[in-house]
Amino acid sequence: MRVQDLETPAVLIDLDVMERNLARMAEYCRQHGLALRPHTKTHKIPELAYRQIKSGASGITVAKLGEAEVMVQAGLADILIAYPIVGREKAARLAALAERASLMVSLDSEEAVRGISRSAQERGVRVGVLVELDVGFRRCGLQRPEEAVALARLIQDLPNVDFRGLMFYPGHFMVSEPERRRLLEDVNVRLRRFYEAFDRAGLLIAIVSGGSTPTAYSSHEFAGVTEIRPGMYIFNDRTMVGLGVARLEDCALSVLVTVVSTSVSGRAIVDGGSKTFSNDRYRAGDGRGFGLVREDPEAEVEALSEEHGHLDISRSLRRYRVGERLTIIPNHVCTVMNLHDEVYGVRGDQVEAVWRVAARGRVR
Amino acid sequence: MRVQDLETPAVLIDLDVMERNLARMAEYCRQHGLALRPHTKTHKIPELAYRQIKSGASGITVAKLGEAEVMVQAGLADILIAYPIVGREKAARLAALAERASLMVSLDSEEAVRGISRSAQERGVRVGVLVELDVGFRRCGLQRPEEAVALARLIQDLPNVDFRGLMFYPGHFMVSEPERRRLLEDVNVRLRRFYEAFDRAGLLIAIVSGGSTPTAYSSHEFAGVTEIRPGMYIFNDRTMVGLGVARLEDCALSVLVTVVSTSVSGRAIVDGGSKTFSNDRYRAGDGRGFGLVREDPEAEVEALSEEHGHLDISRSLRRYRVGERLTIIPNHVCTVMNLHDEVYGVRGDQVEAVWRVAARGRVR
Repeated sequence: MRVQDLETPAVLIDLDVMERNLARMAEYCRQHGLALRPHTKTHKIPELAYRQIKSGASGITVAKLGEAEVMVQAGLADILIAYPIVGREKAARLAALAERASLMVSLDSEEAVRGISRSAQERGVRVGVLVELDVGFRRCGLQRPEEAVALARLIQDLPNVDFRGLMFYPGHFMVSEPERRRLLEDVNVRLRRFYEAFDRAGLLIAIVSGGSTPTAYSSHEFAGVTEIRPGMYIFNDRTMVGLGVARLEDCALSVLVTVVSTSVSGRAIVDGGSKTFSNDRYRAGDGRGFGLVREDPEAEVEALSEEHGHLDISRSLRRYRVGERLTIIPNHVCTVMNLHDEVYGVRGDQVEAVWRVAARGRVR
Repeated sequence: MRVQDLETPAVLIDLDVMERNLARMAEYCRQHGLALRPHTKTHKIPELAYRQIKSGASGITVAKLGEAEVMVQAGLADILIAYPIVGREKAARLAALAERASLMVSLDSEEAVRGISRSAQERGVRVGVLVELDVGFRRCGLQRPEEAVALARLIQDLPNVDFRGLMFYPGHFMVSEPERRRLLEDVNVRLRRFYEAFDRAGLLIAIVSGGSTPTAYSSHEFAGVTEIRPGMYIFNDRTMVGLGVARLEDCALSVLVTVVSTSVSGRAIVDGGSKTFSNDRYRAGDGRGFGLVREDPEAEVEALSEEHGHLDISRSLRRYRVGERLTIIPNHVCTVMNLHDEVYGVRGDQVEAVWRVAARGRVR
């Protein structure tokens, strides 16, 4: 099958670019002695998780228990669920899954770890636990070292859960390079306070799991980090390019669309909208626009209806015609993948693979 | 099954409220002699399309051909695809579908109608066509009356397609009431220009299809409209409430979530983010926030990560604890539905129905 035979809208993954992205991150981690545990919420495809393992990852990360179930079903054996598992049903599912794979979870509350311990004990399995720290993003994670030490001690005291170390997510690093550098100093001050408290308490930290795509190649500068969990690096996107984290030629994912209307002056309408691209905004530069049209840098993806992409072509000299195809690099690859049941791995004009997005929609 | 037995995040549809919404819109249309052709892109569930037919709709509207295929498969017999069908494969699929149901499409280009005519002729079927007009939203639709007349004449001349009338979508009416009133005047001026041109050309307009949820109860004030296509009215959402189009008690859809972290001061984190709610913004008031927490009007859904909802609870006196459940009314119901494989129809604390969102993700 050739790309031109695909119906639109269709998500295309350029395999050459993807393979280069995978190799580069693996090489960086090898050089710096960091374990690589890619976040598979970006692609949600077991076949791609396997490619990450083959290129040097030590295991994978998932966002939700339902994603872990899909990955274990596909044979992935070493998984961090970077999410607090809360509630009796979820703890029971986690324990059932721990019979089939080596699992770790991150959490920041007594409620979460007590539930997991109880279910793991009932099932006779063990679950590794990372205590999540807040390093400034203000989402999940304990803020004070003494709270983290207390939770680690509780984990050590509870049956069938193993305290393995610490986790943090620097989600506030979606900013430009000089600002990232300033934030890095701040994160390191915070991290060292936690390390000192654990040291004083005589608690051994085996793992410090950090990192994300914007910070990935600075991971060796984060104090004490032993493993990283970048996700987007496999594909990259318009925001990563805008933040200077990737180049345009590092973007592996684009969406093939068809022009369906040119009736309105200064506009071209394509057959992908927010149900194809998501409405995630551009988190760099002026924040405007919902994608980058490869064939016409003068076109702006000005707005998205649910099924229509609105291109402002008033500054373009290109002639648009109904029926022609364009490729658009989206603002945010993770939410694009989550909207599609299948995506296409392409090399040149050949479709080499059709992948089912097996963990799409597994929000529970 | 009871609501409390559901795992979270879960999309709940309050059946009492939904039934009231359906009855009210049907009654309005009856009063004003308007045909009701609800846009099923909002829910994407054949069972709910049937409920709309049962409560008085004359047929349904869909956004994409793939949605039409799902609805025809489920037995729905009268469908408007309010989208330009462009490309040989899609035209062939449309013609195949026209063997099984009465189909109309809207379009605004010669390219689209020629392709459809060709495929319909090959297959020996007929397809109804509405010419789409732009009334100020600047998306699809012809802007000048003489272009619309020329396209209608072409449709009359081509084999196996039937010119049925005109369609417009007032997508720019997502504004507050006084502004909507001003826009209505403007739309009517435009519409009358089209009607006069068609009259001069001796072309009969059988259908004028207009309307959306924000304008639904003003539909009788749009000049010449014979049918309307509201979608969101079945559920309503935070934006509809903010625009004064619905009351809070008219919101049938909410998302049941669990608090998974309270570690960060002034924050509570719930287990639904942009992959549960979509990142669609609040299109009313100050535009801030991503949902309304039923249990705590002082909480603001300040931001959405992919799997985390960030509640700013700094102005709230309520105490949040890990494990408790909340219900959140989203900004935009259509994109929420598109993220979930199944949703729950509830009455009181009882789950009466589990519906598969059968047309979810059918973007092609």
